[in-house]
Amino acid sequence: MKIHEIQAYLEQYFDKVELVGSGDITIDGPEKIENATKGKVSFVANEKYTRFIGSTKASLLIVGEKTPTMQYSDRLNFLKVKDPYTAFVFVLQRFSFPRLIAAKGVASSAVIGANVSLGENVAIGEYVVVGDNCVIGENTVIGSHSTIMERAAIGRDCTLFPHVVCYDGTILGDRVTIHSGTVVGADGFGFAPQPDGSYIKIPQMGVVEIHDDVEIGANNTIGRATMGSTVIEKGAKIDNLVQIGHNCRIGENTVIVSQAGISGSVTIGKHCLIGGQAGFAGHLSLPDRTRVSARAGVTKSIHELGQTLGGFPAQPLRDHLRQEALLRSLDKMKQKLDALERDVREMKKGSR
Amino acid sequence: MKIHEIQAYLEQYFDKVELVGSGDITIDGPEKIENATKGKVSFVANEKYTRFIGSTKASLLIVGEKTPTMQYSDRLNFLKVKDPYTAFVFVLQRFSFPRLIAAKGVASSAVIGANVSLGENVAIGEYVVVGDNCVIGENTVIGSHSTIMERAAIGRDCTLFPHVVCYDGTILGDRVTIHSGTVVGADGFGFAPQPDGSYIKIPQMGVVEIHDDVEIGANNTIGRATMGSTVIEKGAKIDNLVQIGHNCRIGENTVIVSQAGISGSVTIGKHCLIGGQAGFAGHLSLPDRTRVSARAGVTKSIHELGQTLGGFPAQPLRDHLRQEALLRSLDKMKQKLDALERDVREMKKGSR
Amino acid sequence: MKIHEIQAYLEQYFDKVELVGSGDITIDGPEKIENATKGKVSFVANEKYTRFIGSTKASLLIVGEKTPTMQYSDRLNFLKVKDPYTAFVFVLQRFSFPRLIAAKGVASSAVIGANVSLGENVAIGEYVVVGDNCVIGENTVIGSHSTIMERAAIGRDCTLFPHVVCYDGTILGDRVTIHSGTVVGADGFGFAPQPDGSYIKIPQMGVVEIHDDVEIGANNTIGRATMGSTVIEKGAKIDNLVQIGHNCRIGENTVIVSQAGISGSVTIGKHCLIGGQAGFAGHLSLPDRTRVSARAGVTKSIHELGQTLGGFPAQPLRDHLRQEALLRSLDKMKQKLDALERDVREMKKGSR
Repeated sequence: MKIHEIQAYLEQYFDKVELVGSGDITIDGPEKIENATKGKVSFVANEKYTRFIGSTKASLLIVGEKTPTMQYSDRLNFLKVKDPYTAFVFVLQRFSFPRLIAAKGVASSAVIGANVSLGENVAIGEYVVVGDNCVIGENTVIGSHSTIMERAAIGRDCTLFPHVVCYDGTILGDRVTIHSGTVVGADGFGFAPQPDGSYIKIPQMGVVEIHDDVEIGANNTIGRATMGSTVIEKGAKIDNLVQIGHNCRIGENTVIVSQAGISGSVTIGKHCLIGGQAGFAGHLSLPDRTRVSARAGVTKSIHELGQTLGGFPAQPLRDHLRQEALLRSLDKMKQKLDALERDVREMKKGSR
Repeated sequence: MKIHEIQAYLEQYFDKVELVGSGDITIDGPEKIENATKGKVSFVANEKYTRFIGSTKASLLIVGEKTPTMQYSDRLNFLKVKDPYTAFVFVLQRFSFPRLIAAKGVASSAVIGANVSLGENVAIGEYVVVGDNCVIGENTVIGSHSTIMERAAIGRDCTLFPHVVCYDGTILGDRVTIHSGTVVGADGFGFAPQPDGSYIKIPQMGVVEIHDDVEIGANNTIGRATMGSTVIEKGAKIDNLVQIGHNCRIGENTVIVSQAGISGSVTIGKHCLIGGQAGFAGHLSLPDRTRVSARAGVTKSIHELGQTLGGFPAQPLRDHLRQEALLRSLDKMKQKLDALERDVREMKKGSR
Repeated sequence: MKIHEIQAYLEQYFDKVELVGSGDITIDGPEKIENATKGKVSFVANEKYTRFIGSTKASLLIVGEKTPTMQYSDRLNFLKVKDPYTAFVFVLQRFSFPRLIAAKGVASSAVIGANVSLGENVAIGEYVVVGDNCVIGENTVIGSHSTIMERAAIGRDCTLFPHVVCYDGTILGDRVTIHSGTVVGADGFGFAPQPDGSYIKIPQMGVVEIHDDVEIGANNTIGRATMGSTVIEKGAKIDNLVQIGHNCRIGENTVIVSQAGISGSVTIGKHCLIGGQAGFAGHLSLPDRTRVSARAGVTKSIHELGQTLGGFPAQPLRDHLRQEALLRSLDKMKQKLDALERDVREMKKGSR
C-alpha cells in the first residue's frame, strides 16, 4: 500500500492529512516505532516517543500536526493529523486481515433448535448449539462450540468467539463482541438462609441484556437478574475475568478492567472507568464519569459526578493519596513523638 | 393463579398463612415492589421497603405477621407469614418455568465411553463427552459440550449446565448444580523447585469430591488433591470465578462469594461466609460460623468459633475497624503532634 | 513394587539412595505420612514432620541423608536421599497412572481444517476443531472440544486438556500443558477514546507465544499482543484464573499463583514468584528473581535484582513489614500523644 493511499484512506476520517515526504513509497504493515524496519508505518502520539523519531527505521510515521518533521524529511516520510493515535488505529484496522471465526452459513455439525430465526449471511461454527426460539441477526458470527440457550435474541453484526455460553433469554444488541469462555446469564448468586443453616435457592428469573457495540473479553461472568434484567449499556467495554453480579446496570461507554468484581444490584453510570481488581459492595451506585482506581474497593454510593476514587474503603483520590502520604510519614511521626516524650520528661524533671 | 391458590401453596411450607383481602384475584407473576403492576405479587421482608406499601401497584403482597395492613386493605391484598422473604422465594419457584438444559435421553451427538452407567431418566445434551467407567445418576441433566472425564461419578438429580468440565475421578453427590465454564478437578498447582531454577511437576493423584446439594457458579476452578480429595461439603454455595486450591475442605453450608481465592490445603468450617475477593494463605483452617469480610486476606488459622474477620492481614472485625478509625484520625494526630512540638519548643525557650 | 525396585528407580535421579531396612517389602502406593497405612510409601522433607516418624503406619519413608532412622528400623524401612521431597515427587510420578485425555489418533468427530500438519502419534479428542494452516507436533494430545484457530502452531509432546481455546496464530513450544477453560490469545484490551466518549477498537494483530515446558492452569486468560507477541518463556508455571495482558513477557521458570493480574506490557524476569491475587500496573518491569507477595500491588518498575515486594503500593518487604508494625503501634502512639498533651497542658498551667 502506497503512502498516498494511506493518506487517502485517513482522509475519510480526518479533515486534514498532510503529507511530508514522498507518497509513492510502499508500506507493508504497522510496527512499534522502536522495532520498525523499512516498509513499516508507525506513529508518535506522545512526547515520550518523539525521541525515537531520530533513530526509527520506519518508512512512514503518523504524527501530530505540530510535530517538527523538517529535520528528518530526507530520511522519513510523515502524515500529519490532529489525532495520530486514532489515525494509527485506523491504519491498524486497514492492515489487519479478517479472522475466520466461523465460515459463512451454518456448519453441518451445528445443532439449531426449533423455531429459530437466522438472519441472512450468518456464520454458525462447528458444534454450535442454538436452543429453541432463538433469534440471530444478519451477519452475526458464532464461533465453534458456543451454546446459545433457548429464547436468546442476538442482534446483527455480532461476533461471538468460540466457547461462549449465553443462557436462556439473553438479549444482545447489534455489533456486540464476546470473547471465548465468557458466560452470560448464569444464575445470580441468591440463596435464602433457613433456620437450620441451609439455604434455599432463589430462582433467577430475569435475563441479561447487552446493548449495541459492547465488547466483552474472555472468561467473564455476567449474572442474570433475579427479576428483570442485568444490563450492559451501549458501547461498554469489559476486559477479562470480570464478575458482574445479578441486576447490575453498567452505563454507556463505561470501561471495566480485568478481574474487577461488581456485586449484585450495582449501578454504574456512563463513561466511567473501573480499574483492574477493583471491587464493589452490592446495591450501590456511581454517577457518570466516575473513575475507580485499580484495586479500589467501593463500599458506598457516590453522588458527586466525575470523581476519581481510590483505596479501600474507596474515597476521593486526593483524600486517599493524602492518607497514603500520612502513612508514609508515620515513621517520622513516631520519632518526633519519642523525641517530644524525652523533652517533656526532661522538662518535668527540671521543673521539680 | 388465584391468591387462594398461592395461599394453599404456601401452607405447605408455613404453619399459618393469613389472607387479608380477596382470595379470588388472579396473579400472573412476581415483581419487585417498586416495579410491580396489577396482577403481580411482591413482598416486604425488610422495614426499608414498608414505605412502598402505600404506592405499589401490585395486587398481592407477602408480608410479615405483624406488618400493619388494615389501612391498605381496600386496595391491596396480603398474605401474612412468619418469613415473608422465604415465602416469596417459594412463590418465585412456583412461577419460574423449567429451563431446558438438555432434552431427556442421550443426545445422538453425545459420546459415551465404555462401561458407563447411566441412571434412568438422564438428560445428556448435545456434544457431551463422557469418559470410560463413569457413573451418572438418575434424573441428572448434563448440558451441551460438558466433558466428564474417565472414572467420574455423578449422583442423581444433578444439573450441569453447558460447558462444565469434570476431570477424571471427580465425585459429585446428589442434587449438585454446576454452572457453565467451571472446571472441577484440574491439577493442583504443585511443582518441586530444582537446583537449576526449573521445576518438576508433582503429580496430582487425588480427586475432587462435591457433596449433596452444593451449587457452584460459573468459571470457577476447583483443584484436585495431590493425594486424597479436595472436598466441598453438603450444601455449600460457591459464586463465580472462585479458586479453590488442592486439598481444601469447604464445610457444610458455607458460602463463598465471587472471586475469592482459597489456597491449597485450607480447611473452612461449616456455616461460614467468605466475602468476595477475599484471599487465603495456604494450609490454614477456620472454624465453624466464621465470617470473612469481602477483600479480607486471611494469613493464619483462627481457633475461636463464630468470629468475623476483616482487613489484610485479617483480624477480628472490631480490631480491624478500630484500626481503620485510627487511620482516619491520623491527620488529626499529626496536627496535634505538630502543635505539641511548637508548645514544647516555646516552653524550652521560656525556661532558658 | 518392591522397595528395592523403588531404590533402583530413584538411583536414576540421585547419586546415592541408601536403604535402611528390608528391600523385599511390597509398596502399593504413596500417601501422606499422617494417613499412611501398611504398604504405603511416604516421606519427611521438613523438620515439622519428623514427629510423625514415630507413629506412621507407612511401610517405607523417604527421608534426608541425616535423618536419624536407627530407632525405628525394627518397624519401618527407609530410603535416604539428598532431596527427599523431589525423590517423593519421582515416586508419585512412578505410581501415577496415565490419564486418558484423548485416544491416539484423530477422533472421527474432530474437524481438521485445510492444510493442517499433524505430527505422528497425535491424539485429537472428540469435537476438537483445528482451523486452517495449523501445525500440531508429534505426540501432542488435545482434549475434547478444544478449539485451535487458524495458523496456530503447537509443538510436540504438548497436552491440552478439554475446552482449551487457542486463538489464531498462537505458538506453543514443546511439552506445554494447558488446563481446561484457558483462553490463549483473545484480543488485548485496547480501545482508543473518541471525543464523544465512545471508543474505537484497536486491532490486536499480534499473537501469543508460549515456550517449552510451560504449564498453564485452568480458566486463565492470556491476551494476544497488539503488535508482536505476548511471551511466556520456557518453564514458567501459571496457576488458575490468572490474567496476563497483551504484550507481557513472563520470564523463564517464573511462577504465577492464582488470580494474579498482570496488566498489559509488563515484563517479568526469570525465576520470579508472583503471589496469588497480586496485581500489576501496566508497562512496568521486574528483574530476575523478584518475589511478589500474595495480594501485593506493583505500581512501578523495580531495578534491583532478587527483591521481595509486599503491600500496595508494593515496596521491599522489609519496608512493608516495618510499615505494618507501625500501623499496629498506632493505638499506642495515640495514647502516648494524648498523655503528652495532658502533660504539656499541665506544665503550661504550672508555668503561668
